[in-house]
Amino acid sequence: MHVVVIGGGGFIGKRLSEELLAKGGLKQGQITRMTIMDKTFPPDMPTDPRVECLPVDFSDAQVMRKVLEQGPQVIFHLAAIVSGEAEKNFDLGMKVNFQASLQLLEMCRELSIKPRIVFASSCGVFGGDVTQVITDETDPKPRSSYGTQKVLVELLINDFSRRGFVDGRSIRLPTITVRPGKPNAATSSFISGIIREPLNGQLSTYPVPPATAFWVLSPKRVVENFIHAANIGASELGNDRTITLPGLTVSVQEMLDSLAKIAGPTVTKRVSYVPDAFLESIVLTWPAKIDPKRSLQLGFVRDSGMDEIIQQYVDEQGISLT
Amino acid sequence: MHVVVIGGGGFIGKRLSEELLAKGGLKQGQITRMTIMDKTFPPDMPTDPRVECLPVDFSDAQVMRKVLEQGPQVIFHLAAIVSGEAEKNFDLGMKVNFQASLQLLEMCRELSIKPRIVFASSCGVFGGDVTQVITDETDPKPRSSYGTQKVLVELLINDFSRRGFVDGRSIRLPTITVRPGKPNAATSSFISGIIREPLNGQLSTYPVPPATAFWVLSPKRVVENFIHAANIGASELGNDRTITLPGLTVSVQEMLDSLAKIAGPTVTKRVSYVPDAFLESIVLTWPAKIDPKRSLQLGFVRDSGMDEIIQQYVDEQGISLT
Repeated sequence: MHVVVIGGGGFIGKRLSEELLAKGGLKQGQITRMTIMDKTFPPDMPTDPRVECLPVDFSDAQVMRKVLEQGPQVIFHLAAIVSGEAEKNFDLGMKVNFQASLQLLEMCRELSIKPRIVFASSCGVFGGDVTQVITDETDPKPRSSYGTQKVLVELLINDFSRRGFVDGRSIRLPTITVRPGKPNAATSSFISGIIREPLNGQLSTYPVPPATAFWVLSPKRVVENFIHAANIGASELGNDRTITLPGLTVSVQEMLDSLAKIAGPTVTKRVSYVPDAFLESIVLTWPAKIDPKRSLQLGFVRDSGMDEIIQQYVDEQGISLT
Repeated sequence: MHVVVIGGGGFIGKRLSEELLAKGGLKQGQITRMTIMDKTFPPDMPTDPRVECLPVDFSDAQVMRKVLEQGPQVIFHLAAIVSGEAEKNFDLGMKVNFQASLQLLEMCRELSIKPRIVFASSCGVFGGDVTQVITDETDPKPRSSYGTQKVLVELLINDFSRRGFVDGRSIRLPTITVRPGKPNAATSSFISGIIREPLNGQLSTYPVPPATAFWVLSPKRVVENFIHAANIGASELGNDRTITLPGLTVSVQEMLDSLAKIAGPTVTKRVSYVPDAFLESIVLTWPAKIDPKRSLQLGFVRDSGMDEIIQQYVDEQGISLT
């Protein structure tokens, strides 16, 4: 079976690729070939003989067509311009987040390859009254161009699946924390930063009041959920191919309390509140309270609590807490 | 003030154009010029000196650009491939209902003309659990390509408005009845047909059980609502530019009862139930019970009942009931 991971050079895409290779397959069959596409790759991509890493832009029609002509059975689509960047550069967000995704769907249809597609959407689609609990029936009403572009693709995946052109499923990702490495242009970047930087001996800030809560999930669990999304049968999903993933509601203060418990109060002193109006204007439109009834019923998973999330990061990074 | 009506050769577009000319203006000012665009026009289009009728396809970029370069202040966008046709011809629906609408928005942005845009969306966007009452918070979950394409444009209009590229508003039209003339390719065509044909001495059928209810509005009221949508200030709408119009919940049986009351039982005997699986598969995904709280608060209107709707048709068509 040939699997494609678009955006596989990013943190989650790479981790997903590694996990897929380690597992060896999906419900549909053994993985004999994996094409990993991204604009750039970190130096430590898997060297497995099944893997080909293509340093390309998936919005390039010629490049994408060549890959699809090989008839992949499963496509994971994680490529995106992150929220802050899509808000600042409207054209780029529309081109990559929306038009290139539509092009991918149109090409699958044109080539009649009917792949299973797992699309990385985002809980950042929600922008209505976020003080209310979000349910599986809540209209997203996005308040960012990133959120808008994600909903557009969800709708296309639903219709293309209903018509039998692809077998798609969109999973709305919570805020993923703790991400290793450096801060990025995502407006949610600070949520990892307030755990990661102090654990690495560095100073860090957050732009919203400490009582601000977020809907979070660990890297380990989100990768499990990507794989689960590919394994679920089309009949289990029915007509609604959009899944709001489970997560945890955790405030900045609760994150810091958990960090203090695991790493000690000296570490949390490296974190401070520095208000930022631009970030706040976007971040405060995200919902923190979600009732993920359908995704839990479908077997998607979440972490037991913030302690587990921080401990996961500490263990994986080999950080010694003295 | 220059007003553009895209799809102004159709039944509602023409009636809207005539009403606008008769009124003379909108809240923003007097209408000094009106460009009416459509692929074809009926012979009795207004001959008013303010009017220019362009027999063009609005999906043609060159044509659309020429019109927009004149800097119209208000654009009514009613052009669409109807529901049944968009389901049967996916490419055509995507091209006209979606891509051409996106092109219109992109051109407005490029030319920095920031027009007020009133977009004709549809209650056909709803496709979730339609036995529930639809509220202003209900996720549409469309189950037709037509519905999907309408939601895509609603989302774009929201984001383009939020970013200040246009001042848009999408109104979700109920099923409009009674439409004069001939049946069309809309899957809702029979709803007018079961009133219109028997009143004109012709036989007519309906494809769904008589208890099936619909969310309906008369031609007169929908035109009033289009004009009201153009007159509402941007601040009254806030971030949510999508409005589900008021309507009435009326079953096929209630329509026929009302027809019998107004025109007599001989007339209703011309109507019969002929099941149609294709039409039923689409029509039964439409919601019939809607709580149009926000649109009523915003001043949009509906008919007092089915009797008024049928009487309006009888009066306007000059049908003599003996």
